[in-house]
Amino acid sequence: MKNHTQKTHFPNVSPIQYKGPDSMDPLSYRFYDPNKKVGNKSMAEHLRFAVAYWHSFNGDGSDPFGWGPRPMPWNEGSTAEERALNKMDAAFEFISKLGVSYYCFHDVDLIDEGDTLSESRKRLDFIADYARKKQEEHQVKLLWGTANLFSHPRYMNGAATNPDFNVVAHAGAQVRNALDITMALDGENYVFWGGREGYISLINTDMKREKDHMARFLHMAKDYARKNGFKGTFFIEPKPAEPTKHQYDYDAATVLGFLNEYDLADDFKLNLEVNHATLALHTFEHELAVAGAEGMLGSIDANRGDYQNGWDTDQFPVDIYELTRAMLVILRYGGFQGGGINFDAKLRRNSTDLNDLFHAHIGGIDLFARALEIAHQILEESEYSELLKNRYASFDSNDGKKFEEGALSLEDLATYIGEGDQLKLISGRQEYYENLINRYIL
Amino acid sequence: MKNHTQKTHFPNVSPIQYKGPDSMDPLSYRFYDPNKKVGNKSMAEHLRFAVAYWHSFNGDGSDPFGWGPRPMPWNEGSTAEERALNKMDAAFEFISKLGVSYYCFHDVDLIDEGDTLSESRKRLDFIADYARKKQEEHQVKLLWGTANLFSHPRYMNGAATNPDFNVVAHAGAQVRNALDITMALDGENYVFWGGREGYISLINTDMKREKDHMARFLHMAKDYARKNGFKGTFFIEPKPAEPTKHQYDYDAATVLGFLNEYDLADDFKLNLEVNHATLALHTFEHELAVAGAEGMLGSIDANRGDYQNGWDTDQFPVDIYELTRAMLVILRYGGFQGGGINFDAKLRRNSTDLNDLFHAHIGGIDLFARALEIAHQILEESEYSELLKNRYASFDSNDGKKFEEGALSLEDLATYIGEGDQLKLISGRQEYYENLINRYIL
Amino acid sequence: MKNHTQKTHFPNVSPIQYKGPDSMDPLSYRFYDPNKKVGNKSMAEHLRFAVAYWHSFNGDGSDPFGWGPRPMPWNEGSTAEERALNKMDAAFEFISKLGVSYYCFHDVDLIDEGDTLSESRKRLDFIADYARKKQEEHQVKLLWGTANLFSHPRYMNGAATNPDFNVVAHAGAQVRNALDITMALDGENYVFWGGREGYISLINTDMKREKDHMARFLHMAKDYARKNGFKGTFFIEPKPAEPTKHQYDYDAATVLGFLNEYDLADDFKLNLEVNHATLALHTFEHELAVAGAEGMLGSIDANRGDYQNGWDTDQFPVDIYELTRAMLVILRYGGFQGGGINFDAKLRRNSTDLNDLFHAHIGGIDLFARALEIAHQILEESEYSELLKNRYASFDSNDGKKFEEGALSLEDLATYIGEGDQLKLISGRQEYYENLINRYIL
Amino acid sequence: MKNHTQKTHFPNVSPIQYKGPDSMDPLSYRFYDPNKKVGNKSMAEHLRFAVAYWHSFNGDGSDPFGWGPRPMPWNEGSTAEERALNKMDAAFEFISKLGVSYYCFHDVDLIDEGDTLSESRKRLDFIADYARKKQEEHQVKLLWGTANLFSHPRYMNGAATNPDFNVVAHAGAQVRNALDITMALDGENYVFWGGREGYISLINTDMKREKDHMARFLHMAKDYARKNGFKGTFFIEPKPAEPTKHQYDYDAATVLGFLNEYDLADDFKLNLEVNHATLALHTFEHELAVAGAEGMLGSIDANRGDYQNGWDTDQFPVDIYELTRAMLVILRYGGFQGGGINFDAKLRRNSTDLNDLFHAHIGGIDLFARALEIAHQILEESEYSELLKNRYASFDSNDGKKFEEGALSLEDLATYIGEGDQLKLISGRQEYYENLINRYIL
Ligand SMILES: [Co+2]
Ligand SMILES: [Co+2]
Ligand SMILES: [Co+2]
Ligand SMILES: [Co+2]
Ligand SMILES: [Co+2]
Ligand SMILES: [Co+2]
Ligand SMILES: [Co+2]
Ligand SMILES: [Co+2]
Repeated sequence: MKNHTQKTHFPNVSPIQYKGPDSMDPLSYRFYDPNKKVGNKSMAEHLRFAVAYWHSFNGDGSDPFGWGPRPMPWNEGSTAEERALNKMDAAFEFISKLGVSYYCFHDVDLIDEGDTLSESRKRLDFIADYARKKQEEHQVKLLWGTANLFSHPRYMNGAATNPDFNVVAHAGAQVRNALDITMALDGENYVFWGGREGYISLINTDMKREKDHMARFLHMAKDYARKNGFKGTFFIEPKPAEPTKHQYDYDAATVLGFLNEYDLADDFKLNLEVNHATLALHTFEHELAVAGAEGMLGSIDANRGDYQNGWDTDQFPVDIYELTRAMLVILRYGGFQGGGINFDAKLRRNSTDLNDLFHAHIGGIDLFARALEIAHQILEESEYSELLKNRYASFDSNDGKKFEEGALSLEDLATYIGEGDQLKLISGRQEYYENLINRYIL
Repeated sequence: MKNHTQKTHFPNVSPIQYKGPDSMDPLSYRFYDPNKKVGNKSMAEHLRFAVAYWHSFNGDGSDPFGWGPRPMPWNEGSTAEERALNKMDAAFEFISKLGVSYYCFHDVDLIDEGDTLSESRKRLDFIADYARKKQEEHQVKLLWGTANLFSHPRYMNGAATNPDFNVVAHAGAQVRNALDITMALDGENYVFWGGREGYISLINTDMKREKDHMARFLHMAKDYARKNGFKGTFFIEPKPAEPTKHQYDYDAATVLGFLNEYDLADDFKLNLEVNHATLALHTFEHELAVAGAEGMLGSIDANRGDYQNGWDTDQFPVDIYELTRAMLVILRYGGFQGGGINFDAKLRRNSTDLNDLFHAHIGGIDLFARALEIAHQILEESEYSELLKNRYASFDSNDGKKFEEGALSLEDLATYIGEGDQLKLISGRQEYYENLINRYIL
Repeated sequence: MKNHTQKTHFPNVSPIQYKGPDSMDPLSYRFYDPNKKVGNKSMAEHLRFAVAYWHSFNGDGSDPFGWGPRPMPWNEGSTAEERALNKMDAAFEFISKLGVSYYCFHDVDLIDEGDTLSESRKRLDFIADYARKKQEEHQVKLLWGTANLFSHPRYMNGAATNPDFNVVAHAGAQVRNALDITMALDGENYVFWGGREGYISLINTDMKREKDHMARFLHMAKDYARKNGFKGTFFIEPKPAEPTKHQYDYDAATVLGFLNEYDLADDFKLNLEVNHATLALHTFEHELAVAGAEGMLGSIDANRGDYQNGWDTDQFPVDIYELTRAMLVILRYGGFQGGGINFDAKLRRNSTDLNDLFHAHIGGIDLFARALEIAHQILEESEYSELLKNRYASFDSNDGKKFEEGALSLEDLATYIGEGDQLKLISGRQEYYENLINRYIL
Repeated sequence: MKNHTQKTHFPNVSPIQYKGPDSMDPLSYRFYDPNKKVGNKSMAEHLRFAVAYWHSFNGDGSDPFGWGPRPMPWNEGSTAEERALNKMDAAFEFISKLGVSYYCFHDVDLIDEGDTLSESRKRLDFIADYARKKQEEHQVKLLWGTANLFSHPRYMNGAATNPDFNVVAHAGAQVRNALDITMALDGENYVFWGGREGYISLINTDMKREKDHMARFLHMAKDYARKNGFKGTFFIEPKPAEPTKHQYDYDAATVLGFLNEYDLADDFKLNLEVNHATLALHTFEHELAVAGAEGMLGSIDANRGDYQNGWDTDQFPVDIYELTRAMLVILRYGGFQGGGINFDAKLRRNSTDLNDLFHAHIGGIDLFARALEIAHQILEESEYSELLKNRYASFDSNDGKKFEEGALSLEDLATYIGEGDQLKLISGRQEYYENLINRYIL
């Protein structure tokens, strides 16, 4: 590190500024004004944006049908350490010019694995030292760390759920290291995405035994981190499938059931990703509401999918509806429990200009900022909250209230309703609600 | 009822006989031989087939784009009672000629609702009396009863989860009646399919409050039935969507989480339907395995979907793979917990010959019988069970065993694996397993 | 008709007025100002909105799991004729208050079929007389007529493609009548949607023979209409499936291939529906571009689907992106070839207030109006058109141009490119384009 | 090549033998007996199996979430030439032990591209020389060749449809080379799969212009090959999407329309892939029937998808239904037009034993052999063909026949049907047909 010389990787881009809704400058924010108050918090406090190391600094645009066209000038150097330093310079320059306060990583994003676990650990410690300096210099914090337990061939049958105990043990060693550097960098949270914790075919799989192993593993990781002073939250990031046929962390409801069954709900919350929600045939707002209602909405991975493809496209957000409806739920449940908005999103394969990375993030950040404002308006200024509350008014008093309190029996219901011939149909007024949303968007 | 004269509705069909694999008679069984032993139980004891009243005797073939072409000669009579008697004659003639031992119904399948709840109850009591006689006469039993809480306009916003308490109360009255006749007919189980317990749009919905109401309602129904001596099991039948955008009983994992959260798991198990599994993007065997591993595999609704459509086609089963893999799981977990195989399947709209109903059921029954034999062979005669067990052998002793027992820490894993450079890749051999299955099918 | 007394069906709704973007009145237009110029045409001239008789005046909200809750006060009267008159009063009152200029119908929407073809014809003539008067009175025109060849059981195996010639002949008689009343009412176009022209299973189907029949039938219909003076365009409305497993008019490309193959392309163009596009896994803009590029973009059915369901939800449009991108294509190809925007959309089942019908249409109309303005701005004021043109600039001169003109051989290409080692990657800049769209929407 | 020493790559596998249906040897054929007659052709003549070079000898099991675990011992050597020779030894050993007669390749499968086009050409000529010897030695023929125009970054925006003419020209040079070696190796056909000939986003795309370019390019390739004596057929392989959002060769109907529109139908036919059919929401048999009815069924790529994933899983075939229904169509249309059955299928990522490649192919080959027998039986021995023919009997004489001949007008139809009140519903009997299929499978 002594001789490391920093290069500028985005020389033509100045720090991105807020220039207001009429700005025609594509390298400015039209809506994201970090210190602007929305309700009693600033935009920055609400949104807590993070840049994802993997897609932005390791992703080369490869896909299953071709290798990667994306230039990554920071991938230079004759040693793993040199390349890691150059990449980190690029990353912090980018994060800093973008003007956001957080980043996230997998262990192997920071620096290549070594041939042995001790060599890998040495490298991680090396780059963590540099990251610590960078964080301070740029006033950037680590939203969460994680370990990549899915890319290496050793994990082809899973990590914690591998049928071979040796692989489980290897995953344990790797997670220990990832936890250590996350703690060393004051990471606020730690994430598990179980990319290959599932099955490719059920025919050769003992699902129950694998799920038990997964729970056991999570307990061990949590115990280790707590013992070593980690105060943050653990997140599980659900996804239904891909690369597996079935992933055990299928969706929010499945993971909540799992956390409860295995006594993990006190330490773990959810990190919900838009594209994972839609792959599970849920809307993103649905997943948020499932988690939010249980106080388990920890953090989100911002991106979008293609509703007509069946894989994780991880595109940058562009849809004000998806984000407005997300922010409605997030605001209703009091914001994130410890987390923020991590752009787990990647440029399209053919977006090969360096500046494309800025355009993509600017578009996503601006959209969240605008969605936050709109959602706040709808909740605070429009008739929405009142309409929704009134829809359930029959449960706020009298027998409806007693029903909620558990004070009625099935016979009581029958007695109450009598002949049942006086029921009125009450319109759900969906089209009215939908117009209401558009009234604040357009 | 005094003057009711029974007609024969399927005069050209004799009781369906087992005639062996080489039979060319389309109105015979090639595989289903009720008394044939497979392991230590007969085919009939394993499979417990039931005919579904609704699709077979009320379904007229209508779809969203047209009204129903199907002739239902039993739908004759100038009063609801007369029509109900004729229909029941046809149903029992059919069940009896098919040679199965069970049937299932919704309340409104048996007889039309009246204008008032007391009139509806009177009608139900009337037809239940007749059903009791028919059951005895034909040695047919009631696998389960249920209440239709989704067809009537009053339930357009849900039943137990309706935002209007009055509708919830009406549903309560209806369920009480359905429980009463189920008990009166010695129904062995009682089912809840929450067709409209969900939302069409989340924007006008308080999901959490609705789920609380659903749990409350199920407790009340269970308490009522238990108080009145019902010893059977309650089943929840998951489905992800349709007619709603989202149904709260989404899939097996979601329902199990719900039953645990709301303390209902001791009385409720699952009734899994093939087409509902596939609509949730799960294989049927997956749903069975999720339930089976928790001792919650109560019963199944046999049918199949179209993997390329997005709605519940409820076609009759025709795929030996789907059923073989289902029977593998069912056998592994010891069969059904109280339930059986209910043909929740309907003729295609354009299958308008009366005999089509026989062909459809015969095809389905034969396929299950054959699948049972194949699955039994695979489990008992092939290398399959051994292969699967060996895949997890590293957890059967030493540190792997300790891991399972919770006796290792994350540091122990790291110590165990050392430098991690000795890992071997162990093939999952999926293609071998798949060939093995085909070895027993073809 | 003599004694027919008109009733007011929407007494509480006044004609809907344009009140500008800041209007908080849910029964006003915020964007649709019929006479406002966008480019060289008024909004009304661009958009040519039509109300669909079937969903709005015949649809009762029924779905495959329940009968219809929707009140239709106009469905009153002891004869088919009386009911038809009342319904038509309601329809024209609605269309008129909404302020649009067109409507569309199937034959059976106007009045119930009779027991015989001659009785049906008599009824159609009767109601067509009344429609003629109504059209004049309200200055409303018929955008297109069509025949419903899918709802009646006789069509369960298809109409023109039915394996039974008798059914084909019946369809012929019905289409003749529908053409006659369309012509009598100065219908500007005539539509074929082949709801059941396809198969439920290929196993019992001779697809080639059925497609030949379909082509034969379309020729006969066209010849009849032309002989009788019809000058309008025939439209085919593609849909991939539902109610069939496969519909022969699958998507735009399939229909264009069919029209070319069977020599129908001079008289027929496409009527594209949003939800049918998405069911075929295409975006709506894609279908528009396929048709537009061939000069075959006739008309559209406006609605939207649910990208996560697999059936035709026919919801009212609410997504400014979907419509903006549609309008970009429509404007680029010079607008509709004879058609307009027909709201083939229905209220949600639980939208049971009469006013919901207004809210739904107002939302859709306003959205199209706003999308028109945005698309016009993007095309005329932004850098978009230039960017797109420049992307293909290498084909505008020199060897690229020669390539387009067919003046180069494969060897010429090889010679031109030489060693091929000087190629530059040119970014597709998708994120930039997407931000550009949002710049004009938000 | 002089010093090249052949190694044995599958030393533990002897040539695969036919051992009959009861064989328990997983490395034997139970159904595929090459010389067995089915009708008037041998199994080998019907099926014409080919091994795909890419998946079997270049595929390392990588996926979007991880690099490849698959051992490829043949990937050894310090030069591209050495590695290519070793790989080819492995390939021909495999093909030969499997006992099939054909193989298929992309140019870059055989040997790595060079840095310049002339270096690439030199390498291709080198390896083609060796291939020629291997073909003779093992009596193996080239079913088809093709050029990989999608993996290299230069093709990130398409090849023939690239917005940059330079890339189009490069593709031209590459195709010329691929045609040359295909001809040098007596390749019987030549294939175009337009992996990136489509768009990622329509917003930055001139679709019409790109399709024109594609047609132009195909004409040039065809003209070049014909001029140089190529007598085989060109195939287009449709696929709807992936890696693109939309691929221009979407499905069979789209490609047929395209070939007709651009006057290419005399030289081109279709190469249909199972998994591409299902990604387009078609059954495989549907695509075969669309092509077969037009005499355009050239060849097939055998594999299967996962009906519940949205990407091309390219798994080996395991479903007797899918193949039986395919063979029914293939037999009905007289077999392949020039092509055969190419296993465009890959081992699962975690199938890492070398023998897994044998198991996978054996399973697929046996399944096709069995499907051939079953389909032949159904067509020749069962009531199937008669049933299907009778379904359309009303068009074989009288007015139905006249209708087919174009001798009737719309008025004639109306006259024929009269009052239309005598129509009978004729059951489609789908369940009967489905049972019939199972009668021959089980
Ligand atoms: Co993520
Ligand atoms: Co993702
Ligand atoms: Co069911
Ligand atoms: Co169902
Ligand atoms: Co339509
Ligand atoms: Co539609
Ligand atoms: Co292929
Ligand atoms: Co493929």
